[in-house]
Amino acid sequence: MSILDALQWRYATKRMNGQTVPQEKLDVILEAARLAPSSFGLQPYSVVVVADPALRERIREVAAPQPQITEGSHLLVFATWNEIHAGQVDDFIAHVADQRELPMDSLDGYRDAIKAAISQHPTQEARLQWAAKQAYIALGTALVAAATEQVDATPMEGFDPQALDEVLGLERKGLRSTVIMVLGYRDIENDRMASLKKVRWPRETYLR
Amino acid sequence: MSILDALQWRYATKRMNGQTVPQEKLDVILEAARLAPSSFGLQPYSVVVVADPALRERIREVAAPQPQITEGSHLLVFATWNEIHAGQVDDFIAHVADQRELPMDSLDGYRDAIKAAISQHPTQEARLQWAAKQAYIALGTALVAAATEQVDATPMEGFDPQALDEVLGLERKGLRSTVIMVLGYRDIENDRMASLKKVRWPRETYLR
Repeated sequence: MSILDALQWRYATKRMNGQTVPQEKLDVILEAARLAPSSFGLQPYSVVVVADPALRERIREVAAPQPQITEGSHLLVFATWNEIHAGQVDDFIAHVADQRELPMDSLDGYRDAIKAAISQHPTQEARLQWAAKQAYIALGTALVAAATEQVDATPMEGFDPQALDEVLGLERKGLRSTVIMVLGYRDIENDRMASLKKVRWPRETYLR
Repeated sequence: MSILDALQWRYATKRMNGQTVPQEKLDVILEAARLAPSSFGLQPYSVVVVADPALRERIREVAAPQPQITEGSHLLVFATWNEIHAGQVDDFIAHVADQRELPMDSLDGYRDAIKAAISQHPTQEARLQWAAKQAYIALGTALVAAATEQVDATPMEGFDPQALDEVLGLERKGLRSTVIMVLGYRDIENDRMASLKKVRWPRETYLR
């Protein structure tokens, strides 16, 4: 299936049928997210995968009341690092040096460029917004991957991030939820959105 | 080519060879961006396509000094609406009603939900950040589309948005640049990044 056919096929599924996304399809979607680009390659976020039905029930009760949370089979939580600081950049540079078998000091310019870019976001809130944008690139990538795998996906901003962070213990992990996505399969009989025409701005409005 | 192979193939190309991306490939990439999802489907941004070499030369001089700006063939500027206000939501609802052949008042709940969500971002700056995140979903989508079309793409945050807006007259169009992407073809001989191993956080770090 071409990427355009896949994107035409997908929609923000409102009701799901409880069927489980197979592990091999889940793996493709998560690997696509992991390969998504980010500013300087820093990837200042993680993806938390919630499969456990009881945990998703709890999330639906206290943080995200939408039915897909439990009608889908996996909830992906895109969670930024809850602080962006110099030590993380140093860890990243060490990881790059290790992976590319380069001496650390050959990456001094790279490290300085990342630190300079981060310092252009003067507040912690601004740095988290920047990190969130990187996570949204991965969200877009995962959405396309899900569509090409013919898995339904519903991205959601309408949830209580503090409540979700508490249920998942994200603060302990140094993370903060920024956007979530449910994976599952559309319930055609009960989702009235399933049959509606996709609406986008026309090309003459969207492209300027 | 599978989406994972495409994502492994792509990298943030630092030098391009001047070859022009064919119109049919450009069309796929732009259409993928247009089909990208966004919160409520509002798509509070446009994509400005800059092909003209003289204009890209000017952009490279005053707003984005990277060589790819002129070594690529097309510059995509993801530009959010520079204000997010109730009138735009009303225009959007009218467009949805028209496309789905529904009476306007059947969409009152939808309209109210969008306005309520927007009002949760209390400042103009917060609303623009929210709009920028939607544009980043389209950026991620366009990046995947470019990779599957075997077109190189370099997303960039390192540019002067005010200078770019001025060169392109974006304020007059009610837009503000948020992130840009160059399309073109890698110059393997001159891009030392072309042969470097792709580095991402390992699955056990990225997935939590």
